[in-house]
Amino acid sequence: MPKSAETAILPVNPLMPQRQRVIFFISDGTGITAEMLGHSLLTQFEDIQFSQVVIPFVDSVEKAQECVARITAAKAASEARPVVFTTLVNDAVRSILRQADALVLDFFETFLAPLEREFSTGSSHTVGRSHGTANSSGYQHRIEAVNFALAHDDGLAFGELGAADVILVGVSRSGKTPTCLYLALQFGIRAANCPLTPEDFQRGRLPEAVQAHLPKVYGLTIAPERLARIRNERRPESHYASLANCEYEVDAAERLMRRNGIRWLSSTARSIEEIATQILQDVRLERRAH
Amino acid sequence: MPKSAETAILPVNPLMPQRQRVIFFISDGTGITAEMLGHSLLTQFEDIQFSQVVIPFVDSVEKAQECVARITAAKAASEARPVVFTTLVNDAVRSILRQADALVLDFFETFLAPLEREFSTGSSHTVGRSHGTANSSGYQHRIEAVNFALAHDDGLAFGELGAADVILVGVSRSGKTPTCLYLALQFGIRAANCPLTPEDFQRGRLPEAVQAHLPKVYGLTIAPERLARIRNERRPESHYASLANCEYEVDAAERLMRRNGIRWLSSTARSIEEIATQILQDVRLERRAH
Repeated sequence: MPKSAETAILPVNPLMPQRQRVIFFISDGTGITAEMLGHSLLTQFEDIQFSQVVIPFVDSVEKAQECVARITAAKAASEARPVVFTTLVNDAVRSILRQADALVLDFFETFLAPLEREFSTGSSHTVGRSHGTANSSGYQHRIEAVNFALAHDDGLAFGELGAADVILVGVSRSGKTPTCLYLALQFGIRAANCPLTPEDFQRGRLPEAVQAHLPKVYGLTIAPERLARIRNERRPESHYASLANCEYEVDAAERLMRRNGIRWLSSTARSIEEIATQILQDVRLERRAH
Repeated sequence: MPKSAETAILPVNPLMPQRQRVIFFISDGTGITAEMLGHSLLTQFEDIQFSQVVIPFVDSVEKAQECVARITAAKAASEARPVVFTTLVNDAVRSILRQADALVLDFFETFLAPLEREFSTGSSHTVGRSHGTANSSGYQHRIEAVNFALAHDDGLAFGELGAADVILVGVSRSGKTPTCLYLALQFGIRAANCPLTPEDFQRGRLPEAVQAHLPKVYGLTIAPERLARIRNERRPESHYASLANCEYEVDAAERLMRRNGIRWLSSTARSIEEIATQILQDVRLERRAH
């Protein structure tokens, strides 16, 4: 089981002064937005080691005071002051956080003012709106899309492919399933997936059900070396995982996709987010949920 | 199939001047960070209708110029100037975007400077780092966690529950599956789930495999009215979906959880993100991936 968040705060290595920092992500909601932006900023500083503490649901003055106490303790343990990324809507909560001996970067405070000027209106200062409620239509789309992805994973069911927004094809372990689930959870896109197998290659044809929905089909390919590595973790020393077989399958799959005019991309050096976003852009799909 | 992004740009309703705005999210990566932060800001302005255009992978001067052209066209079609949220690392790309006739809010530009001062160092200005690469350990954790969640969905397999970080229990359709998948994809947490069924209620005991891992078990409950609504979409007019049965099951599940000292929360008014974050906090699990 992973360690609890607190144990991640290590004393600074005296040989490398200031090259370690404690980072807090503090939010009145989940903190996921603060974390994402914070991470994308911190990845720009490669030579600093960050230990991270996420504190969600800070929606009262008392909880804000607890945060300040934790920041103070982290400062005492690590010499350099912590950096705090926050998305806090409530002014009272925010003003307490600002008393902490830390660099406090508040996304809302920074950007709400220019937006209020631009829209000539005040903002509602409502806490916890950013991920919608369980009753919003975006939320329903996401749940339905997850159910759809699970029901249409790995060629499980072909009956409802007409209802799919996109159908991913590719050899086993090319990244289809995580991509479909991400498209569903993040964007509410109904994504089915169907493996391309040695049987398909021998027949030289796509599965019938896939063929019938060709305009919605999108391919994933992968470097044979990487595929062999992934498959070896599952079935070591098997024919399935051998480099020779991976080379054969990838080559056959790419030829099958090319012959059918299927767009594809390589998952080899891309994250799930990058694959999903590229597919949305190529297929010109609009998100059903944000 | 959803409409393409362009059709979302509507002309302004003359009866409601300035109450519609076109919002651009422009990034050299996926744009997901810009989108999430932008949405959490825009939800604070309830009386304005936003049409949204996401343009990812803007990593060249040429693509930046195309963006400016699209912003200009949106401005011409809608009277009020667009708002542009960007996360752009490259200075040349950013300076072209800044020429657009729009309110441009750049998250990186705003926060990188104070961070560089704080860390007494320059940032690497490297594009597309925010979601890690397919080779990072965080990425591997996420893929493995997705596979684990799929293999241990809905009580499918009990053999490897010892490897789970958390085991969710609850009545059918209480939100276990999407939560497990979100925990896996977003945080790399290995989450299994197991339904609590009428058989368990009659026996008055948790499934044996769940009982054996009690310290890792976390419950989801749900308001019977909402559960009946969700189940009716799947199996209308069934005993399974009837309000009386939903009330019975929810009550029996809560009694079973209480008797076994299982922590739980209600999924009724919470989004997947909120449920997942609350579980992480309650179980004191650290993320395996960010």
